[in-house]
Amino acid sequence: MTAENAPRTVGVVLFEGFEPLDAFGPIQVLGIVPRLFRVVLLGPAPGPVASALGGAPGPAVLAEDAWESPDVSVDVLLVPGGMGTRAEVGNQRLLAALRSRAAEAELVTSVCTGAALLAAAGLLDSKRATSNKRAFDWVRSQGPRTEWVPQARWVVDGNTVTSGGVAAGLDMAFHLVERLHGHDLARRLADGIEYEWHDDADWDPFAAANGLV
Amino acid sequence: MTAENAPRTVGVVLFEGFEPLDAFGPIQVLGIVPRLFRVVLLGPAPGPVASALGGAPGPAVLAEDAWESPDVSVDVLLVPGGMGTRAEVGNQRLLAALRSRAAEAELVTSVCTGAALLAAAGLLDSKRATSNKRAFDWVRSQGPRTEWVPQARWVVDGNTVTSGGVAAGLDMAFHLVERLHGHDLARRLADGIEYEWHDDADWDPFAAANGLV
Repeated sequence: MTAENAPRTVGVVLFEGFEPLDAFGPIQVLGIVPRLFRVVLLGPAPGPVASALGGAPGPAVLAEDAWESPDVSVDVLLVPGGMGTRAEVGNQRLLAALRSRAAEAELVTSVCTGAALLAAAGLLDSKRATSNKRAFDWVRSQGPRTEWVPQARWVVDGNTVTSGGVAAGLDMAFHLVERLHGHDLARRLADGIEYEWHDDADWDPFAAANGLV
Repeated sequence: MTAENAPRTVGVVLFEGFEPLDAFGPIQVLGIVPRLFRVVLLGPAPGPVASALGGAPGPAVLAEDAWESPDVSVDVLLVPGGMGTRAEVGNQRLLAALRSRAAEAELVTSVCTGAALLAAAGLLDSKRATSNKRAFDWVRSQGPRTEWVPQARWVVDGNTVTSGGVAAGLDMAFHLVERLHGHDLARRLADGIEYEWHDDADWDPFAAANGLV
């Protein structure tokens, strides 16, 4: 927990092959109020981490510190998805770091197939969660003890918040602002970046569009 | 122009203090079909370029090449906005690079206050254009020979396409897909990343929300 009035630290967990918008949607939404949120990018090591897009290499982003760095304490853990999750669900070092970060965090969150990493780390056991609608069966296979919700923009279970695919992370991020600082601020921030916030967690036309319901 | 069937090269012009989602919205939308679009990040030099968020330093992204690199030929020029534009409108090297890239490009596009850079380079003279709704007066001052449109999600004038603030770049990027490859593909890609595409350029509640109309 942060000191009163100090910004919360949002730890964004990057890995090779993360999906760019999964990370940069919430980074934009939360990072735009530095008095409330300080965004820190965590990677396998400090330095470049390559994203992936449509099966090809995507832009590389600079991680500021390592996943496990003792120099960073995370209040809001944010795990993006992407093609890289297929390999990373077997990366025991990453899964251990997620468990350790989740234990210190006030909120544990994921976007898209980031839920597969939380599930593989055991962090979604006995919880309700959602994920990307086109990769749902694979994500489900990573969390046999999770109650998977196919139709939801995001799902809240205690301090754990999981969102649908890619762009759903934007709506979830505004919900995190709402949860921590109220609906009005979330709405003002959305207007400021000219984003139509879907503030209803049950709004999800994409489960049907992608054949899940 | 690219050879038939070769992907178009999308040149994203990064500068210190660019707004992360201005760049990463369109990067996600276009980059997810590598058979159609190859995204190249251009910076002051190859290497890290720091974004800015809410007046504070934001994540750094690796530029692959320099703005003027002769090794890259750009088909779709994409200029994001952000606080950094306040300084960059006076950067003659950048403005010259924008003029040169625009001359070779099939499409010249901007997100948010990126329109101020196009305007300062003279690339919006005698054209209709839009920009971020909260920074509209400042952007307007950079383009006295431009017909500025306050209420629009994006504005098309010939080969020049300018969008509203930050998240509007996502809708404009799907429009670019639509223009080059048809409405159905744009719609399918939007469903795939679980994004509600506003496919009407006249949809813009944010001009009113931000006091412009």
